[in-house]
Amino acid sequence: MNYDQIFDKAITRLHEEGRYRVFVDILRNKGKFPNARCFAGHNGPRPITVWCSNDYLSMGQHPKVIAAMETALHDVGAGSGGTRNIGGNTHLHVELENELADLHGKDGALLFTSGYVSNEASLSTLAKILPGCIIYSDELNHASMIAGIRNSGCEKHVFKHNDMEHLEQLLAASDPNVPKLIAFESVYSMDGDIAPIAEICDLADKYNALTYCDEVHAVGMYGPRGGGITERDGTASRVTIIEGTLGKAFGVMGGYITADRKIIDVIRSYAPGFIFTTSLSPVLVAGVLAAVKHLKSSNEERDSQQRHAAYLKKSFADAGLPVMHSVTHIVPLMIGDPVKAKRISDILLAEYGVYVQPINYPTVPRGTERLRFTPGPSHDEAMMDQLTKALLEIWNREELALIKAA
Amino acid sequence: MNYDQIFDKAITRLHEEGRYRVFVDILRNKGKFPNARCFAGHNGPRPITVWCSNDYLSMGQHPKVIAAMETALHDVGAGSGGTRNIGGNTHLHVELENELADLHGKDGALLFTSGYVSNEASLSTLAKILPGCIIYSDELNHASMIAGIRNSGCEKHVFKHNDMEHLEQLLAASDPNVPKLIAFESVYSMDGDIAPIAEICDLADKYNALTYCDEVHAVGMYGPRGGGITERDGTASRVTIIEGTLGKAFGVMGGYITADRKIIDVIRSYAPGFIFTTSLSPVLVAGVLAAVKHLKSSNEERDSQQRHAAYLKKSFADAGLPVMHSVTHIVPLMIGDPVKAKRISDILLAEYGVYVQPINYPTVPRGTERLRFTPGPSHDEAMMDQLTKALLEIWNREELALIKAA
Repeated sequence: MNYDQIFDKAITRLHEEGRYRVFVDILRNKGKFPNARCFAGHNGPRPITVWCSNDYLSMGQHPKVIAAMETALHDVGAGSGGTRNIGGNTHLHVELENELADLHGKDGALLFTSGYVSNEASLSTLAKILPGCIIYSDELNHASMIAGIRNSGCEKHVFKHNDMEHLEQLLAASDPNVPKLIAFESVYSMDGDIAPIAEICDLADKYNALTYCDEVHAVGMYGPRGGGITERDGTASRVTIIEGTLGKAFGVMGGYITADRKIIDVIRSYAPGFIFTTSLSPVLVAGVLAAVKHLKSSNEERDSQQRHAAYLKKSFADAGLPVMHSVTHIVPLMIGDPVKAKRISDILLAEYGVYVQPINYPTVPRGTERLRFTPGPSHDEAMMDQLTKALLEIWNREELALIKAA
Repeated sequence: MNYDQIFDKAITRLHEEGRYRVFVDILRNKGKFPNARCFAGHNGPRPITVWCSNDYLSMGQHPKVIAAMETALHDVGAGSGGTRNIGGNTHLHVELENELADLHGKDGALLFTSGYVSNEASLSTLAKILPGCIIYSDELNHASMIAGIRNSGCEKHVFKHNDMEHLEQLLAASDPNVPKLIAFESVYSMDGDIAPIAEICDLADKYNALTYCDEVHAVGMYGPRGGGITERDGTASRVTIIEGTLGKAFGVMGGYITADRKIIDVIRSYAPGFIFTTSLSPVLVAGVLAAVKHLKSSNEERDSQQRHAAYLKKSFADAGLPVMHSVTHIVPLMIGDPVKAKRISDILLAEYGVYVQPINYPTVPRGTERLRFTPGPSHDEAMMDQLTKALLEIWNREELALIKAA
């Protein structure tokens, strides 16, 4: 039994596959996003531009969010001091849950320490509570949903990505008398496509299934109040459980679900990942409250973000860069090889001060490694033109094939 | 298939068993802990004293922590904006990991969004990486450790609480050629007892097993620099992996592990619960950095906390209240019935402004329901005398039996 050898082998495998991850060490500059400081590979910080943040709308830098957090910090202190049940249920948590329930037109909501935990805890608990439950899961669902489904130990059927025929085949083949849950995302963030939510709900009605929709890449971003794709398309009331994050468009940290109060009460009462953990810091909760309220009434951030994403997609396409088809704010550039993706990312950072992380397996399937750009309200046209120019230079220098614009 | 009925039944079961949880809605008053405001059951906030916080040393209110968080808030903003790999690896995260590795005398550390996630992700990943791994788990291990062990799918043997004979029996009966991991806590927080860590390490040496020690209720609290029981007793270098929380003695939120750099690299590279989640807000990280640094050099908080815990235990025992034997800072009062525990807690809050949550199943075994007091540096003797007096009044009024002092 040589433990060291086993650990060495596990790490060597990653190096061999070109997917060993090196974390780039940065600090953002509040109020000047996407500008940041990079600490890696040189003495002292060096200025960079961040192109891969999930703080999609720069709300993590918004004066209202900062002010709310500062107030909470001085009013109640740093942490909650306990689980929601034992000392850690602050009035701010209660207020934020009401705000989030309202955002999605549901009568209940529940906060978690992260989006990952909200998916893992909710899916695994639901499937355990419903005897004999079968889960139907989109093949591109996020790792946290897969973890929740696997940890529930229930029967699982994976349907082809956004493929309604396949989903219906699977539903039709199951015993009509067992509980069923269809789990999917609204925006798939690595490809930038969107689920056919109304059709999924039609199938759920037909086969008496519950629906669970992960809107983490859509909340704050879509719909007139930031209620996500289900708000934009008017399907929120048809989806049983809507899950979201507080760490992307809302700019802070944490996760949540919204649903009927009864379902919320069940998950609140039975999910170990909710029960046995210190609740979100009230400072974070206060910041999110400000962000959610602001994005309920302001469309400015959403609109300029969408404009910039459209501009960047067109700019990449016009230049012949391999931009993937995306109907959302995500701008992925297909590389198809982990070593090349890492190399382009390294050159961008070292020579151009452009920070975009390569996305490799297991975040995306092998052979579909990519660079994923997330332009925000503060990435202006000049920055985007510079970025396209830099990429073209690298493409030519590295003798990568340019493609025809889509 | 009536989903509503199933959900109703799940909730009814909790009411019938007297363990339906009602979250008390509070806000702490920064700088005035344990004073807080309670929002439940009346119009507007009412002053209460918190007796069940896990912010054991009031570090969540410490001026250095608040100042560090305020600085980070204005320097870098609210959230990290991404996973550790994609945009969310800030310089503060790197600094804090170095600080925590140093605290435990290890050469690596890894931050997680919570202590729960650190246990779940680390244990499940380790056991998956080590082929055929068997885990030996103390029967009173925390829910998050149990989740990690279960989710790894590996063979598991539960040993009787702190029972070295039983542990050795189990180790001796296993194939000597398979990887082994012994998982335990240093301080068991619901009873207040401590594991025989040196003896566990002796057995680990004898049977070539790795060791995993959860120090969440001990870090910051024990040892001359707050390195926990393993620092106090000089066993840190013998334990393979030490896990801790940032949400109790350090007063903020989050979790971590420390170990050899190689093991940290493996978990960093393979644990879905680490990889696929937005990293801790840099504001929280900055606060924790200040708390860890402060408690490395200051013994004042630890000393006064221990003094107050000893005073309260003696005060309860002298009054004939059923205080449980505890060798730590935890002061549990055995009730043994969920309905009575809830009733005493309700009276304390409504009539005495004393907030202590009843602890019931599944946090503790059925029949051992209790009230768990956590006096801190700011709970003075007058407060503790008042508390004992209040409890005595309730004991008499409710006709509960007083016991002989231990």
